Amino acid sequence: MHTYLDCIPCIFRQALEAARFCGLDEAAQAETLYAIGRQLPNLPLNLPPPELHRLLFPFIGGAIGSTDPYREVKKSSNRYALALYPELIARVRSSATPLRTAVEIAIVGNIIDYGAMRGQDIKPKLERLLSEEQQRLTQEDSTFFDFSFFSRKLEKADSVLYLADNAGETVFDRVLLKTIRQRYPDKPLLYAVRSKPIVNDALEEDARECGIDAVAEIVSSGSDAPGTILSRCTPDFLEKFRAADIIISKGQGNYEALSGERGPICFLLVAKCPVIAEDIGCAVGDVLLIPAAAISPTA
Amino acid sequence: MHTYLDCIPCIFRQALEAARFCGLDEAAQAETLYAIGRQLPNLPLNLPPPELHRLLFPFIGGAIGSTDPYREVKKSSNRYALALYPELIARVRSSATPLRTAVEIAIVGNIIDYGAMRGQDIKPKLERLLSEEQQRLTQEDSTFFDFSFFSRKLEKADSVLYLADNAGETVFDRVLLKTIRQRYPDKPLLYAVRSKPIVNDALEEDARECGIDAVAEIVSSGSDAPGTILSRCTPDFLEKFRAADIIISKGQGNYEALSGERGPICFLLVAKCPVIAEDIGCAVGDVLLIPAAAISPTA
Repeated sequence: MHTYLDCIPCIFRQALEAARFCGLDEAAQAETLYAIGRQLPNLPLNLPPPELHRLLFPFIGGAIGSTDPYREVKKSSNRYALALYPELIARVRSSATPLRTAVEIAIVGNIIDYGAMRGQDIKPKLERLLSEEQQRLTQEDSTFFDFSFFSRKLEKADSVLYLADNAGETVFDRVLLKTIRQRYPDKPLLYAVRSKPIVNDALEEDARECGIDAVAEIVSSGSDAPGTILSRCTPDFLEKFRAADIIISKGQGNYEALSGERGPICFLLVAKCPVIAEDIGCAVGDVLLIPAAAISPTA
Repeated sequence: MHTYLDCIPCIFRQALEAARFCGLDEAAQAETLYAIGRQLPNLPLNLPPPELHRLLFPFIGGAIGSTDPYREVKKSSNRYALALYPELIARVRSSATPLRTAVEIAIVGNIIDYGAMRGQDIKPKLERLLSEEQQRLTQEDSTFFDFSFFSRKLEKADSVLYLADNAGETVFDRVLLKTIRQRYPDKPLLYAVRSKPIVNDALEEDARECGIDAVAEIVSSGSDAPGTILSRCTPDFLEKFRAADIIISKGQGNYEALSGERGPICFLLVAKCPVIAEDIGCAVGDVLLIPAAAISPTA
């Protein structure tokens, strides 16, 4: 997906949010926005939004002299989510349809804004989100939520590649990975994280902190953008990407990076912004579990 | 209210919307955003957002060589709203509490996005909005919706000044003005519009097109910002402003411009954005009918 002009206001909003996350004072927050304002004409709008975020990220990190300004936020998101893990797993165990429940949990992991939840009790919100998802998704499959396709594809697959999204959310991914592992003990499972710090996206250390190594092999994609931009990935990862029988692509950033790609990709995301909803043809807030072929005519 | 850094993403969003309204092609839309990006460091954030909009507006109008790029949009909003007028007036006539109903109608006029409604049948939406407002507002007065204060202040007032917001909405203001006129036939009623084109704000010609001259005297404030910025107003208008016993200030732009002012101002608006909601201490979407004294400690 290329970057729409509608993404530009959002780039400023996210930069401001990031600058605040990093503890910049108001003058430095303003400077961050001015620096991005100066860069606007140089931004390659033909590329997906994660590429632009990659290009602009140093203007925030640089301002505080850090290459990983989100490190503490990510660590705290991981801790936060880990405390929920036993409850999440118990839900899958007691479910009559564990794989579906695990998918619902992975989705809820994509909805929670860990930054905004800091200091709050996440449990009531989690409870509400899970029951909302259950209600929404126990209905029949829709064009955008094709669980049958997903489960059939997964069953036939000899190898599974899961593309990670944010730290914290990784714990919810672990629940789905563990459920897949239990159902198919012999299928190789790969969990791909970014290779360099970029906003709050999961790195290898986040995946380890969240216990992914107990259920899947952690690999670095090579991407330093908040999305799996294939042109930024390592040859080694690209080989794994091409060899996988199902690629579970989590979150908006990976969708933006891969929406035009061929391959056995299954996007799992919540359409959080109007630009993506428009691009997909769904409504804002819709939960998607959708094969790439259903989106891109070239897939 | 000063301009918050959170207003900057919104400035880009509104500029893009404006550029599209004006029929600019995508390259020119991008150029508009780049021009604003270059201007960012020069923007006086200590001033209210309408001042910044005033400073930035030429970058959009200039790009299409027009000083009033919203002229057609405003005309069509006026026509659109005028077609609803008989129904709105009928509602007030049949109401047991006509003044309250007229206030509710004026609020609904502030909610409708005429641009987004073009080509759609507005009536079902209008019906829904009116019944929602009625439900919400027939409850007891709240901190933010002080109808008793408003009606008492209005009763005692020897002169009433109403500060207009957008074209189209003006028809809904006319309903409230007419209701005030019928209740108090001898009170001078002034309706103040902007003096120069600025986005879709009502000008004198809009007020006339919407039939305001039948119920109130139309005056130009002198402001060329999307808000009644007193430092941009004419001495003549300032005299009327200081002399009024009640000033009904409609919409967010006028709130932003006047939130720190002394005087018998009664703000009537929907808090549409999180920055204003935070500034007031209310929730996004709240309907406000609130004396300036309840907001500003200096009022």
